[in-house]
Amino acid sequence: MSADQSANFARRMGQMRPSTIREILKVTAQPDVISFAGGLPAPELFPVAEVRAAADAVLTQYGSRALQYGPSEGFMPLREWIAEELVRRGLQATATEVMVTSGSQQVLDLVGKLFLDPGDVVLTENPTYLAAIQSFQTFEAKFVPVPTDADGLIPDALPALIRQHRPKFLYTIPNFQNPTGITLSAPRRAAVARIAAEHNLTVVEDDPYGKLRYRGADIPAIKHWDEAGRVLYVSTFSKTIAPGLRLGWIAAPADIMARLLILKQAADLHTSSFDQLVAHTYLTQNDPAAHLEKIRQAYGERYAVLDGALRAALPAGYSWTTPEGGMFLWVTGPENLDAMELLGRAIAQKVAFVPGRDFFPAGGGKNFLRLNYSNATPERIREGVRRLAALCRAG
Amino acid sequence: MSADQSANFARRMGQMRPSTIREILKVTAQPDVISFAGGLPAPELFPVAEVRAAADAVLTQYGSRALQYGPSEGFMPLREWIAEELVRRGLQATATEVMVTSGSQQVLDLVGKLFLDPGDVVLTENPTYLAAIQSFQTFEAKFVPVPTDADGLIPDALPALIRQHRPKFLYTIPNFQNPTGITLSAPRRAAVARIAAEHNLTVVEDDPYGKLRYRGADIPAIKHWDEAGRVLYVSTFSKTIAPGLRLGWIAAPADIMARLLILKQAADLHTSSFDQLVAHTYLTQNDPAAHLEKIRQAYGERYAVLDGALRAALPAGYSWTTPEGGMFLWVTGPENLDAMELLGRAIAQKVAFVPGRDFFPAGGGKNFLRLNYSNATPERIREGVRRLAALCRAG
Repeated sequence: MSADQSANFARRMGQMRPSTIREILKVTAQPDVISFAGGLPAPELFPVAEVRAAADAVLTQYGSRALQYGPSEGFMPLREWIAEELVRRGLQATATEVMVTSGSQQVLDLVGKLFLDPGDVVLTENPTYLAAIQSFQTFEAKFVPVPTDADGLIPDALPALIRQHRPKFLYTIPNFQNPTGITLSAPRRAAVARIAAEHNLTVVEDDPYGKLRYRGADIPAIKHWDEAGRVLYVSTFSKTIAPGLRLGWIAAPADIMARLLILKQAADLHTSSFDQLVAHTYLTQNDPAAHLEKIRQAYGERYAVLDGALRAALPAGYSWTTPEGGMFLWVTGPENLDAMELLGRAIAQKVAFVPGRDFFPAGGGKNFLRLNYSNATPERIREGVRRLAALCRAG
Repeated sequence: MSADQSANFARRMGQMRPSTIREILKVTAQPDVISFAGGLPAPELFPVAEVRAAADAVLTQYGSRALQYGPSEGFMPLREWIAEELVRRGLQATATEVMVTSGSQQVLDLVGKLFLDPGDVVLTENPTYLAAIQSFQTFEAKFVPVPTDADGLIPDALPALIRQHRPKFLYTIPNFQNPTGITLSAPRRAAVARIAAEHNLTVVEDDPYGKLRYRGADIPAIKHWDEAGRVLYVSTFSKTIAPGLRLGWIAAPADIMARLLILKQAADLHTSSFDQLVAHTYLTQNDPAAHLEKIRQAYGERYAVLDGALRAALPAGYSWTTPEGGMFLWVTGPENLDAMELLGRAIAQKVAFVPGRDFFPAGGGKNFLRLNYSNATPERIREGVRRLAALCRAG
């Protein structure tokens, strides 16, 4: 490697490192480890038989067309299905304002590529989704956290941050946030949309978990209140069908979409034709709402088991969030807790979690734990908490 | 959109525009248009029944694992299959040096992201692959063409260009190049590897068409001579199985691979688990070499039909390349030919091609045509050339 290339590499890769989560997942791949790490949906709830039938139907019905190059925007009937679903939920979007992507992670990459120059500021919740931090770091973004409480980010704090930092966009996960499980309240969503309009602030609304609500009432998306066209709404089939198909999407105003489309072409031409047709056939030949209900029930049960086990076993000085959906719960330990040190002892006892530190884009956060409850049975959740709580009491 | 964001957009999107090819493809989607445009493989040769059987087997054998998140590097048995195949062809690569990507187009995006800052120089053949130009333009690269003749790029020209421009890498398509169909000779491949080692030049060797040779003898890849670890070898299943699965790969030295892996995680986490498992099952449960032989025979026949029809019909002043494989043939018209103007008249006569202009990264090239012959039957090729030649004679 030549000297100037090495220097570029070093700068560009700067703070980037392989995801801590992925490193932990390698350790926890053994079946005897009870893992609250990772963010895997429950595989026993994947509609495997239905996907098999859909794959067969697609290759019978569409033949070679299912395997040919397709439009960069995505398979039109799937875009139409997505747009109709958004409209049912009170979001104004036409099929031409929807683009199918290779997972919602790809939207973060495309949005970063479109908006970010080195040193540009992104506003985020604090803590926020680790892979969003990593994606925007690729473009050498700076992160400015928005003050956050139990109802999500605090909109009143936005105007001063906008004036001071001139952020390129606000990145937010309003429903059952990753990593905290917190939900942004309805009045705050309306306020974010209003402030975005007043201050010309682009909002990237990432909603992978919105359909996984197991208690309480649905709250409309920020984009529901977005009359000014400032909100890019992002979601995925990873949690409602299966993540291995890598199907996400973005709904965005036409001027933004035209630019994202050019970047999508350059990034991978288009998302798998086969996976798009399989998903569309699955969605239209089955009852995806009934399937979702099963997922919600299972996750709600697992959340209740985890919450109950934590109440029974964690020592004083620990508290945690009470999510109404999604896959994660967020534990705050005593101020002197070092969650990385705890993780070392936990892995020795065959239980794992993700230390909260890496979710704080501006540093700090060493006394937090993220616990995933979607990917373990109630029995294993109880046993895992027993092991973890013993370590917390010993520590 | 705020003023500073608009300015950024304008600069960033600079010379970028939706692919001319894709715009032409929209016009030529009607079945009565005979299209030499696009770069579609022959869909009637896709192994549809075999893919259907593979999809069924994958969901039966792997169950939910085929639909779960997977490693960013790709499905290990598929990486092993690719590495073994590379070794058989004289390229040194282990499975850990292979990463599966969302089409080979994604490699261009990841490589651009890793190496390129605004204003950085990429050396390319002249003309070169349009979507590579677009991908590297995303990172605001500059292009410096390497002098090229009937045996491909001229290695002797490289040292002076390296000293003058300090390019971040050389991008080359040695086999049946897109758009020209030209093949880089064996001595020149060895010379490129030697010069790359001497000058610390990274070489991105893009080889989507190498297995589509229908006459002449295979030539080892540049990477075959790459003892210094300067060559990143890129290929795809798009032309040997089907493009709709969006499966490409890169083989690269470990230090480069470690960095590309972080960028891959940030870009889309990983490539479709389902498509990777389907491809691996297809490759191991069938005879892909026999299937390739069918493709080669068909493309060789179509090339011969196209070449013969051009000889019979094109007026004086036109010449064209004589590819030994791949999907494209390159026509040089009279100096005063305006291929864009010809295209307008051609579409009115229900025949289409791609004007060569957009393949020249440094401008020029208005009297060239790219003709694809993989996606039309011999009969339609003959009729298409009749229509096109009449226009050339009239023009």
